[in-house]
Amino acid sequence: MAEVLKYVGLDVGGTTMKAAVVDDTGTAAESVMLPTEPQFGQEHGLATMAEAIRQAVKAAKLKMGDIAAIGVATPGMMDIKLGLILDPPNLKPWRNVPVRDYIHKTFGKPTAFQNDANAAAFGEYWIGAGRDFHSLVLFTLGTGVGGGVIINDRVMEGAHSHGGELGHMRIALPDTGRLCGCGRQGCLEAYASATGVVGRTREAMAAYRGPTRLRELLRDDDGSAMTAEEVFDVAAAGDPLAMQIVDDTAYYLALGASAIISVVDPELIAYGGGMIAAGEPFLAKIKEYISRFALSYPAKQVQVRYAQLGSDAGFIGAAACARQLVASSGSGN
Amino acid sequence: MAEVLKYVGLDVGGTTMKAAVVDDTGTAAESVMLPTEPQFGQEHGLATMAEAIRQAVKAAKLKMGDIAAIGVATPGMMDIKLGLILDPPNLKPWRNVPVRDYIHKTFGKPTAFQNDANAAAFGEYWIGAGRDFHSLVLFTLGTGVGGGVIINDRVMEGAHSHGGELGHMRIALPDTGRLCGCGRQGCLEAYASATGVVGRTREAMAAYRGPTRLRELLRDDDGSAMTAEEVFDVAAAGDPLAMQIVDDTAYYLALGASAIISVVDPELIAYGGGMIAAGEPFLAKIKEYISRFALSYPAKQVQVRYAQLGSDAGFIGAAACARQLVASSGSGN
Repeated sequence: MAEVLKYVGLDVGGTTMKAAVVDDTGTAAESVMLPTEPQFGQEHGLATMAEAIRQAVKAAKLKMGDIAAIGVATPGMMDIKLGLILDPPNLKPWRNVPVRDYIHKTFGKPTAFQNDANAAAFGEYWIGAGRDFHSLVLFTLGTGVGGGVIINDRVMEGAHSHGGELGHMRIALPDTGRLCGCGRQGCLEAYASATGVVGRTREAMAAYRGPTRLRELLRDDDGSAMTAEEVFDVAAAGDPLAMQIVDDTAYYLALGASAIISVVDPELIAYGGGMIAAGEPFLAKIKEYISRFALSYPAKQVQVRYAQLGSDAGFIGAAACARQLVASSGSGN
Repeated sequence: MAEVLKYVGLDVGGTTMKAAVVDDTGTAAESVMLPTEPQFGQEHGLATMAEAIRQAVKAAKLKMGDIAAIGVATPGMMDIKLGLILDPPNLKPWRNVPVRDYIHKTFGKPTAFQNDANAAAFGEYWIGAGRDFHSLVLFTLGTGVGGGVIINDRVMEGAHSHGGELGHMRIALPDTGRLCGCGRQGCLEAYASATGVVGRTREAMAAYRGPTRLRELLRDDDGSAMTAEEVFDVAAAGDPLAMQIVDDTAYYLALGASAIISVVDPELIAYGGGMIAAGEPFLAKIKEYISRFALSYPAKQVQVRYAQLGSDAGFIGAAACARQLVASSGSGN
């Protein structure tokens, strides 16, 4: 019986990084988490990445010699082909960090490098919601809206490492669209991120004269302490205004999905992140709006599901990238 | 010296079909054109396709034995994988036409089948505006807005043969967007197709009290005889209202390009079709709006050009698909 190859997947975020050994069947060993502490500089960050990889191998009760390859996922901006982090807003003051070369030199293993949202999509493709498909698009709903596109079993990285920046698809004309964190107007993220949900809720409350339990969420002057999860909870309890906001969120997400159906026409559209706690009724609303607003022929056939790997998607996807690297280099020998 | 392989490319449209022999270097022999005459039924249509292929081989002073493979491009709706035309609106009353099998059986040659807009994009990728690139997105501006996406040297067909339906990306919210021919609101095509340009011109004239040479184009009650080319000509002559309409067209096209940059992030965005007669000033406007409205990092790097193959792009791209078919099956032997 052939040995089952093992990989380390590492997912670097602005606050923490998470790593685990994942084997060829997609089974993950115990994961480890370390603080990223970008404020201590990029040398410290690279050393922490190496330490997370070592700890993950140890947590799996393995030795580094047991590892076939390593995959690292980080937030953009980045140059995927060169293996560089450029200057991501949530990893300040890092700049031009040679992640792939550093990890490769430190461990002497084939090392894959990928955008974190792309890696999450690739993880879902490998062993999650998309394991039966060759193409999928993942929307990750959090503070922002992230995304990853898998086509023909490969990550669509983009020519300039910006493939699948789905939060910045525009769903409304720039002159009337909501202001996005990126400084542009009308981006999907401005409507459907947790931040967008809270912003729309504050505006709706200001314009609404009737009673709503949403007012109980106002713990500060401008309502900025309110969370999207709370708005969804109040909606689930039957509050009409909150229900309208959740319904609108499904509508905006469906407009993003409609654009994806027109451009990419994938087998599966998946949603991950905090909002999926809203469960099947929310997913059903998204599907209903997709059937109304997308091109009907592909819309009838596309699958729409929740992601399945939660916050493990990033390191599992990073490991999947390592696995693909070994498989593709192996086929040439 | 190895023999230069030769292919027949056939591009089937609603009114005419065009075919030519194209060799491995992309050099096309004299092309032939036959009427499609969909009203005479699909048997007649298939026979005409076969006749066009025969005439193309004859026009190239070759025999069928000299041909390595055949490529056929047709309008959607279609099932690319099964090689079927389903029920395209401009090929009525055709329905479930087994194009690929028919051509394959008739000539006994490897036969590729592709969407016409995808084929045009693949032709531009092969020997046109995109010949130096591995990824490009082509917008074809005509009665509608067609599109094709090439990623990693391959056509993005979509899981349900709807990849690259770029005219039906929505650039405005459905409730306020212009009505599209597809019955939905806010599609790029509703704004930036020739039909959309004429529609916007009629509305602008109705709302405009000043003098404009556009009124000379009104030869019938509702202005429907006016063409987009005429509007562009009047703009080129300096008419302020027409110039505004052309400028708005560039703006809408740039919004479509911005969405493509966020999702696909290609090396090249190319524009083909009648409107490119407007020349460099129009392209410069599109570029300016892209720099204002797209994600800045990829927008700075993406190339924006006119297509180069004109109405030959379809049959050249169909031949390129035939060539890819032979190359990929050959590599397995």
